[in-house]
Amino acid sequence: MRTHLDCLPCLMNQALRAARATTDDEEVHRRVLDAVAGMIPKLSLDLRPPEITQQGYKLIYQIIGDSDPFRRAKAEANQMALAHYPRIKKVLADSEDSLLTACKLAIAGNSIDFGPEFNWGNVDDIVKIALSSPLAINDYEKLRDSITNSRQVLYLGDNAGEIVFDRLLIEELHSIAEVDTTFVVRERPIINDATLDDALAVGMDTVATVVSSDSDAPATILSQCSTEMLRYYRSADVIIAKGQGNYEALDEEESNIFFLLRAKCPVLAELLGVQIGDAVLKQQTPRDDSKQIPNLGRK
Amino acid sequence: MRTHLDCLPCLMNQALRAARATTDDEEVHRRVLDAVAGMIPKLSLDLRPPEITQQGYKLIYQIIGDSDPFRRAKAEANQMALAHYPRIKKVLADSEDSLLTACKLAIAGNSIDFGPEFNWGNVDDIVKIALSSPLAINDYEKLRDSITNSRQVLYLGDNAGEIVFDRLLIEELHSIAEVDTTFVVRERPIINDATLDDALAVGMDTVATVVSSDSDAPATILSQCSTEMLRYYRSADVIIAKGQGNYEALDEEESNIFFLLRAKCPVLAELLGVQIGDAVLKQQTPRDDSKQIPNLGRK
Repeated sequence: MRTHLDCLPCLMNQALRAARATTDDEEVHRRVLDAVAGMIPKLSLDLRPPEITQQGYKLIYQIIGDSDPFRRAKAEANQMALAHYPRIKKVLADSEDSLLTACKLAIAGNSIDFGPEFNWGNVDDIVKIALSSPLAINDYEKLRDSITNSRQVLYLGDNAGEIVFDRLLIEELHSIAEVDTTFVVRERPIINDATLDDALAVGMDTVATVVSSDSDAPATILSQCSTEMLRYYRSADVIIAKGQGNYEALDEEESNIFFLLRAKCPVLAELLGVQIGDAVLKQQTPRDDSKQIPNLGRK
Repeated sequence: MRTHLDCLPCLMNQALRAARATTDDEEVHRRVLDAVAGMIPKLSLDLRPPEITQQGYKLIYQIIGDSDPFRRAKAEANQMALAHYPRIKKVLADSEDSLLTACKLAIAGNSIDFGPEFNWGNVDDIVKIALSSPLAINDYEKLRDSITNSRQVLYLGDNAGEIVFDRLLIEELHSIAEVDTTFVVRERPIINDATLDDALAVGMDTVATVVSSDSDAPATILSQCSTEMLRYYRSADVIIAKGQGNYEALDEEESNIFFLLRAKCPVLAELLGVQIGDAVLKQQTPRDDSKQIPNLGRK
C-alpha cells in the first residue's frame, strides 16, 4: 500500500516519541521534530509507509547521534519474553489446538512495538490477550493447510521480544509438517526491529536459518532486499509476514503470504475492516488493480 | 501555558482534518500538510497553544481559499442544540441543583469542537454524559459562592452549538444572583468557534451583552483583545472561561477565573491530573512562578 496523508502527522508523533526515548534534552526533541517536519514536503506518497518511516528514523538517528537508541529496550524485551518461554511452552502443550494458540500468541507478541504505539505492557498481558481474544480476520485453516503442503517456509520477522513468540510458532509449524524455515531479520537496527543479534539472543538459529533482509527498512521492502533473501522469498511455498509494516510492504504481492499482525493505526484498521488493536491472520488476496513492485535485489 | 512539543504533531493532525472537512481534493490536503509542516520549525514554543493554532488555521484557510470552512457545520450545531433548548430547560427545572446541572451541561457542550477532536455525537449524548458523569475537578461550590457575591460576570465563550448550553447556564446564573453578564465571542471565524453571528443565532443577546474579543485566536489571548474587551475583563467580579483553549490562554492569570472544559488532549489531561474526556470545573490557582503576560489591548 502507498503512504496515506495520515502517515505524515503519525511520523511526527513517532519522531517525538523516539527522541524522548533517547534523551531528556528538549532542544534535541525540537530539532528532531523540526527536521522531520522539514522532510515532509519532500516525501513521495508513492512510497510505502515503512519506507517513509525508514527515512524518518535515519534522520532522527543522525540528529540524536545514536544509530540504535532502542538497544537496551530491545535486549530487555528479548530477555523478558525468553524468561516466559517454558511457561508458554506449557500453555501450548495444554492447548486444544497448539498451532492456533501459537499463531494467536505470535500475533499478540506483535504488540511489542516502539513505533506507532509505545507501551506494550508485559508478557503476562500478551499471553492473556492472545488466549482470550478472537482473530478479527481468521484465515487460520488456510494457513494450516498451506503449511502441511509446504516444504519451505519463509518467516518475515518484526520486533525484538516478539521473536520469542515467533520461535514458539515456528516450533509448532515443525511439529505438524516437515518444513524448513528461514527467518528474516533487518540488516541494521531501526526502532525495535529484530536484527541478527536479537535472533541469536532468543535462539532462533536453533529452529530456523536466520538471514538478513540486507535492508534497514522496518519491513520487507523487496526492492531493498539482497539477492539471497529474494531467492528464499521466491522459493518459499508459504510466507509468514509479521506486523503491520510487512502488510504495508507486501499487500500487493502475488505470493502465498499469510499476514499475522495487530492493527496499530486507523488507516490500516479501516483498510482491513477491523478495529485498532485487533488480531489479524489474513491470507494474501492480490487485488486485480494492484501495481506490482519489481522484485529486484540490490546484490 | 506555553506550547508543548506534542502540540506540533497535533497541529499537523488538525490541519489534515480541517483540509478534509473542506474539500475532497487530496492535492489540497497535501498542500495544507506541507505548508503546516513548513511552518513548524518557525513556531516559538513561548506562544500559547491557541496562538499556534491561530497561525496554523490562518495558513490552512489561505491554502483552501475559504475563510470559514465550518460555517455550515457551525450553523447546524447551533440549530441542533437550539432545538433541544426547551427539553433541556425542563431537565434543569426538574434538577435538584439546577445551577450544578447547568454547569455540567455547559461542560459537556464543550465536546462540540472540530479542533483537537472531531466527532461530538449529538445533543442527546451530551445531555446523557452531563447527567451521568462526575466532575473530575469540582470547584462548583466556590463558583456558586463567587457568583452570589458578584455583580459583573464575564463569560468567555468557545464553540458554536456549545453556546446554547452557555446561554442556559447564564440563565441559571441570573436566577440565583443579580448579575450582569457579558459574553465574549471571536472577532472572525476560526475552526467552529462562536462569533457574533452564532451568538445572535442562539439568542445570546437576550441574556447577556455580547462583545467581540477583537481577535480571531481560538481562545482569549489578552494581548490580542480590544480595549473594550479588556475593560470588561478587568471589571468583572468573576470570569467563566469555556474550553481548553481558554485554559491554555489564561492559566497564569491572577483573575478570579473558573474554567469549565472537557480535557481534550494528553498534555492538558496530564497537567490537570485528569483523563482525556473528563469534565473539569476548576477555579484559577495562580502559580507563584507564573510569568504574567501583559494585559495590553490593541486599541
